[in-house]
Amino acid sequence: MVVDKVRFDIVTLFPQIFPGYLGESLLAKSIENGIVDTHVHNLRDWSKNKHHKVDSPPYGGGPGMLIQVQPVVECIEAVRGLDTEPGQLILLSPQGEKLTQSLVSELATYRRMILLCGRYEGFDQRVIDILQPREISLGDFILNGGEVAAMAIIESVIRLIPGVLGDAQSSQQDSFSDASLLEFPQYTKPREFRGIAVPEILLSGNHAQIASWRLLQSQHRTAQRRSDLLQ
Amino acid sequence: MVVDKVRFDIVTLFPQIFPGYLGESLLAKSIENGIVDTHVHNLRDWSKNKHHKVDSPPYGGGPGMLIQVQPVVECIEAVRGLDTEPGQLILLSPQGEKLTQSLVSELATYRRMILLCGRYEGFDQRVIDILQPREISLGDFILNGGEVAAMAIIESVIRLIPGVLGDAQSSQQDSFSDASLLEFPQYTKPREFRGIAVPEILLSGNHAQIASWRLLQSQHRTAQRRSDLLQ
Repeated sequence: MVVDKVRFDIVTLFPQIFPGYLGESLLAKSIENGIVDTHVHNLRDWSKNKHHKVDSPPYGGGPGMLIQVQPVVECIEAVRGLDTEPGQLILLSPQGEKLTQSLVSELATYRRMILLCGRYEGFDQRVIDILQPREISLGDFILNGGEVAAMAIIESVIRLIPGVLGDAQSSQQDSFSDASLLEFPQYTKPREFRGIAVPEILLSGNHAQIASWRLLQSQHRTAQRRSDLLQ
Repeated sequence: MVVDKVRFDIVTLFPQIFPGYLGESLLAKSIENGIVDTHVHNLRDWSKNKHHKVDSPPYGGGPGMLIQVQPVVECIEAVRGLDTEPGQLILLSPQGEKLTQSLVSELATYRRMILLCGRYEGFDQRVIDILQPREISLGDFILNGGEVAAMAIIESVIRLIPGVLGDAQSSQQDSFSDASLLEFPQYTKPREFRGIAVPEILLSGNHAQIASWRLLQSQHRTAQRRSDLLQ
């Protein structure tokens, strides 16, 4: 069951990335309406180092720096304790399961998610061994950190929660929400722009014909671009 | 050939999303160093409507609102003209080709990209017919708009540009950069945390043995989690 409200805790080394994002659009409205509750935590606050360092070179050699186990484990334990619902811990990682619309639907059943964003060369493996997070990846490409992936999870999940999108039908009709067809082409005002007119059928008022034209367009486009979805 | 500097123009209805993101971490440093140049444009500035509206309901009926063709086409034409290099236009869309590390490598050869972010139910089809953008998707899940996908493109591309990552080796060794294996587990200080010790081999100083242990771990993890990458 999709929840009626959700809490996100974001753990990051770059908390200043988020206010601009959280303050805009549907997300801001959902926060105002109490449907979504977000909290950003600076991982550095759990460092025991006097310079608030949380990284150190890997044992065995190699480029870059790793995030140490102590600040992460202590931070996540503290953040979990901030609510009676401990929440699902999610580690944004290229090693994780790929985000898909069906995974988004599953995440939309959690009342609380703690999104742990990595940086540098990643975490000490003991972070994963001790905290047993669910590891999620945006796809087969490399980001500098988990922050953009955390935003993608928040945004894709909240739009499934009732009351977030203005029109309840909107999230049903999008590409992938029925996991089978891409969207049909759409047109709006004006009727003609630089000599290109809106297809006549859309102005006909014949709803049955419009629906079958749209279905055909969706099938055609899906066959052309994403034949894998038709199997 | 990967470029030595790149310009991104972001066209969005929510320009306030970006300053926090662009002001942090490697991206901020690369902007400071002149390797990356970013410009954010508010699509609403090209509206001819006195309330700066850019959306309108779809012809033929259906939920939600579409972004109209006129402001988008005029905005993109104006933005293209801001630099002698017209740039590659990219439309962030769930209908597009999926972002992968090999696509990221290809994008890293462009000197300029214009990233067009949709919102609502998407664009009037004539935007695509007239501007012929390259359509790119983050994956098979639905976001409210293209902004997060634009960030993912910027972040994944700039880390391939020489001088952006501190250590030139770092971007070579990550998952997917050789498109075949996930990363091996890594460890850093302390040697023991809550009774869990770093694997002895990593402390041995024997670099040949460490390299073969890491390769084995990578292969094992890839076989377990992403056997598709081994084919």
